[in-house]
Amino acid sequence: MDKPDYQLIIVGGGPAGLTAGLYAARGRIQTLLIEKGATGGQVLVTDWVDNYPAFAEGVAGFELMDKMTAHADRFGLEKKFAAVESMDLRGDLKRIRLDSGEELTCEAVIICTGARPRKIEAPGEKELQGKGVSYCATCDAPFYRDQEIAVVGGGNTAIQEALHLTKFAKKVTVIHRRDSLRATAILQEKAFAEPKIDFIWNAQISEIVGQDSVEAVRITYNDDSTATLPVTGVFILIGVVPNNDMLPLDQLQTDESGFLITDSEMVCAGLSGVYAAGDIRSKLFRQIINAAGEGATAELSAEHYLSNCPTA
Amino acid sequence: MDKPDYQLIIVGGGPAGLTAGLYAARGRIQTLLIEKGATGGQVLVTDWVDNYPAFAEGVAGFELMDKMTAHADRFGLEKKFAAVESMDLRGDLKRIRLDSGEELTCEAVIICTGARPRKIEAPGEKELQGKGVSYCATCDAPFYRDQEIAVVGGGNTAIQEALHLTKFAKKVTVIHRRDSLRATAILQEKAFAEPKIDFIWNAQISEIVGQDSVEAVRITYNDDSTATLPVTGVFILIGVVPNNDMLPLDQLQTDESGFLITDSEMVCAGLSGVYAAGDIRSKLFRQIINAAGEGATAELSAEHYLSNCPTA
Repeated sequence: MDKPDYQLIIVGGGPAGLTAGLYAARGRIQTLLIEKGATGGQVLVTDWVDNYPAFAEGVAGFELMDKMTAHADRFGLEKKFAAVESMDLRGDLKRIRLDSGEELTCEAVIICTGARPRKIEAPGEKELQGKGVSYCATCDAPFYRDQEIAVVGGGNTAIQEALHLTKFAKKVTVIHRRDSLRATAILQEKAFAEPKIDFIWNAQISEIVGQDSVEAVRITYNDDSTATLPVTGVFILIGVVPNNDMLPLDQLQTDESGFLITDSEMVCAGLSGVYAAGDIRSKLFRQIINAAGEGATAELSAEHYLSNCPTA
Repeated sequence: MDKPDYQLIIVGGGPAGLTAGLYAARGRIQTLLIEKGATGGQVLVTDWVDNYPAFAEGVAGFELMDKMTAHADRFGLEKKFAAVESMDLRGDLKRIRLDSGEELTCEAVIICTGARPRKIEAPGEKELQGKGVSYCATCDAPFYRDQEIAVVGGGNTAIQEALHLTKFAKKVTVIHRRDSLRATAILQEKAFAEPKIDFIWNAQISEIVGQDSVEAVRITYNDDSTATLPVTGVFILIGVVPNNDMLPLDQLQTDESGFLITDSEMVCAGLSGVYAAGDIRSKLFRQIINAAGEGATAELSAEHYLSNCPTA
């Protein structure tokens, strides 16, 4: 085998990738982390993180990611800011091609490319993200005590989270583009029985309005009539999309939504020397703390692979 | 079903239990965390934690656990300091019996009772833990740059970690009670080829010596002859033992060492409403950060179970 450029390449610099990078650099594995933007991932657009354990008073998203980056940097993690165009993960020598045309080789790869919430693509959505627009009720529900909020969606996640939000909010209006929910019967029953939950059927949000934070949503019904609903928060819970464009999906096993299937030690199904951690994994719950935990596990799995590999 | 005392009971207050407790309290699940000693688990006896992501300069073990405890407390987590004697986890109503005789009931249980390293039971071992005596090379290897250290054990973990330690230490002496290693052939080959690794065969540590930190180990050979080896660190890597005395092992599925088998969402195999997180799980890598991540996942799984449960 040709001598690889690195022992380990980590693709993606969110909480999973940074934790894998911290462990790898600290473990003196010859490692490169490739990130296309700034390190921090989705957390960078998270205003305030209240559930990363041991930051007892909460922490701004960018500050938490600054600290994670500094932590990996302290152990000398090498980083490259570039977009990955394609990968070949078969065989002992893995190949990562950047959009500059440069090709890098390595013995092990950890995929931490993350995921992104499905957007409603309404005016105001992007501008007010983290300022009343949220894609994670688990993360942000407690910030909406005694407020009136909207939930967009009709699936299991949307209805379960609408129920969760009633523990905090004064009123929760579920806005759904159809006339019935997709959520399971028991969740529907609970939602219909919950006095704090209202429903707006056959409608979509056409604009999210607010100066410094969300003040209202404009609603357009399927019959083109419109209305305005004053709310201080909008939870958009219509699905999560994997960042898998640059991945060789013919070599990897994915679930029906395109998320990567791994075993409990983060080994990608059907490949050796390839790991995944964080939001790109096929799993139910996407949180900063479990992404970080998976990053550590993936890196230790990779170290284990490298030390049991005759050529490494 | 009788009304349970709690929706959720978490057994064990280390990083996994505290994170589950933080998520549960923040999610307004009616929760009790039961801990027999002080919250913090194994980390309380960890001198310095250098790999909990975002604590970039490192943090004392007790301080990290103080912060995790304060974080859960901030959201009002109810805690009870008591020893669990037995549990009945079958059926919809789970029963937890304390050694006081008190019985508590709940709908869901998260088991976070942890594990402990197997000790050599030599004089000085306990006194010098965290002061040169370590049970985790991943955690502590970088603290031993250019030092001479000993590793106890002959299995895969011991030999892989001895190799890992050579990246930092000047010299690593593997002390093994037999005349050959149990580790796989490739690890043995690498260890024998590594000039920094020495072996002491057919011998055990009979005492760990040091005033404020480890200064030497006294070795007793199988033929009763003795020697002294000056070292500043001793890594005891002879296995991990699950804290499962209080668990109903006839109701839970375990691996051959007694660790709990879960799926990737931390659901205990063969039971509903029962979860496990952290070191008590059957897994390869036991770290603070992945215990915490599993605690969050387990709690969200439990919330999902409770909200999809007609009686909850």
